[in-house]
Amino acid sequence: MEKMKNLAYYNGKITLIDDMMIPANDRGFYFGDGIYEAAMVYNHKIFALQDHLDRMFHSAEMVRISLPYTKEEVGALLSDLVLKVESGCQFLYWQVTRGTAPRNHMFPSAEISSNLYVYSKPWKGVEMSDEYRLLSVKDTRFLHCNIKTLNLLPNVMAAQAAKEAGCQEAVFVRDGLVTEGAHSNVSIIKDGVFITHPLDNLILPGTERKHMLRYCGELGIPVEERAFTLEELMDADEIIVSSTSHPSMRAMEVDKKPAGMKNPELVQKLRDRYLEEINQ
Amino acid sequence: MEKMKNLAYYNGKITLIDDMMIPANDRGFYFGDGIYEAAMVYNHKIFALQDHLDRMFHSAEMVRISLPYTKEEVGALLSDLVLKVESGCQFLYWQVTRGTAPRNHMFPSAEISSNLYVYSKPWKGVEMSDEYRLLSVKDTRFLHCNIKTLNLLPNVMAAQAAKEAGCQEAVFVRDGLVTEGAHSNVSIIKDGVFITHPLDNLILPGTERKHMLRYCGELGIPVEERAFTLEELMDADEIIVSSTSHPSMRAMEVDKKPAGMKNPELVQKLRDRYLEEINQ
Repeated sequence: MEKMKNLAYYNGKITLIDDMMIPANDRGFYFGDGIYEAAMVYNHKIFALQDHLDRMFHSAEMVRISLPYTKEEVGALLSDLVLKVESGCQFLYWQVTRGTAPRNHMFPSAEISSNLYVYSKPWKGVEMSDEYRLLSVKDTRFLHCNIKTLNLLPNVMAAQAAKEAGCQEAVFVRDGLVTEGAHSNVSIIKDGVFITHPLDNLILPGTERKHMLRYCGELGIPVEERAFTLEELMDADEIIVSSTSHPSMRAMEVDKKPAGMKNPELVQKLRDRYLEEINQ
Repeated sequence: MEKMKNLAYYNGKITLIDDMMIPANDRGFYFGDGIYEAAMVYNHKIFALQDHLDRMFHSAEMVRISLPYTKEEVGALLSDLVLKVESGCQFLYWQVTRGTAPRNHMFPSAEISSNLYVYSKPWKGVEMSDEYRLLSVKDTRFLHCNIKTLNLLPNVMAAQAAKEAGCQEAVFVRDGLVTEGAHSNVSIIKDGVFITHPLDNLILPGTERKHMLRYCGELGIPVEERAFTLEELMDADEIIVSSTSHPSMRAMEVDKKPAGMKNPELVQKLRDRYLEEINQ
């Protein structure tokens, strides 16, 4: 079978990403009524697939979207789709919307099935950086940030503001406390302790955040799961910005002031664990 | 020219609503990255068109979406589209998304134009009811409710909760104060005074809310633009739920307790003004 440069899938149909068309009546298009996941693919294998499937099903449950398949079934479908793409290293994205129906706030009738959209595209490899610049922005988002929904306009606005300020990521601050990035979790290291926001409705339960906590346990690095202030971020020994696609970005600046970069050894230990895992 | 049962428009293409396909790369589909409007059409004429155009351009400006046309041009396009639909009485919806591009939080390059999607469908006529039941729900939405964005998942969840409670609308309550409905504004009448939430970032500046304030001025009804508590809602002489498609719904129940319905004469005066205006 000839492989594809990239791939999109929508309810069984497969095309190149740019060619995929979906009905305007998909509730994702006019309500953002859906949830999503993204995962890295290394050597044609989906990294941390189970974590993503678990979160996918949790997100769907939280917004009451029915999934007409098991985790195993959708995992098998995704694993099959990434095999169809030429590159072994891919960025894989999938989303589920509540269905296709005339616009109406209330859920469509029970016979209407949810829609599964997937795309996968070549990725350049493991993205790590020691030169991240952060812009702090006020966190005015809804109180459901633990659900990975398609309602991402505030994240879009923050990410764009960061870019225009010469930064690579925005950091949301709510009531003086750092919550997370526009498309990442934000953790700090201070005096050898790894500090990261606790899991609640203000942040996404990031898979890399979860992995790093496990690495800390394995490496004997003490952990505090607590909110920290913008001042603590500024004053941290290290600032680690993590996401699926960018698992370990060290921030060197916050709001144009130098920050972090004082414990490279500890960061390297965490990075080494990640690199070990993806090569397993 | 033969008229259509209903109509969808997307960047120049026209089909029946159910047949319209859009690219999966439209940023509306995966970020909810867009804004919208809805208007009533009576006798093939768009009611309060200028109000909707003004708000559309304001919403777009707030989320920094460029509109490559003037208000007059998009108004002329919409006015032309509703002429193509058989029924003179229609529900007209349109939305603008930031453009079609590979998924990336940052804005696409400046050459990427925003997408205009429109649909119009037959409507049954002026929707007024004296039998609305309301369910109060906690307002956990973002702090940009003044912008008419496509990030509507909390509104979807609230509307569905209301339906399942045997109600026709959900009323958001933030810190004890009523903000608005899931797809409406909520105002009360108490001792002859019309009381409605002030325009700020917690509510949508509804066109019917605006019209009712003008009607109050014309009819000599005193107005207070201030937030009111859930208790004040329960204790009001009248509760008026208003939106473009449902301009005057009298609530008779809040959270299963009888409410309002004590000043029908005043409500009727407001309704009469609406009916006069749409027949002009």
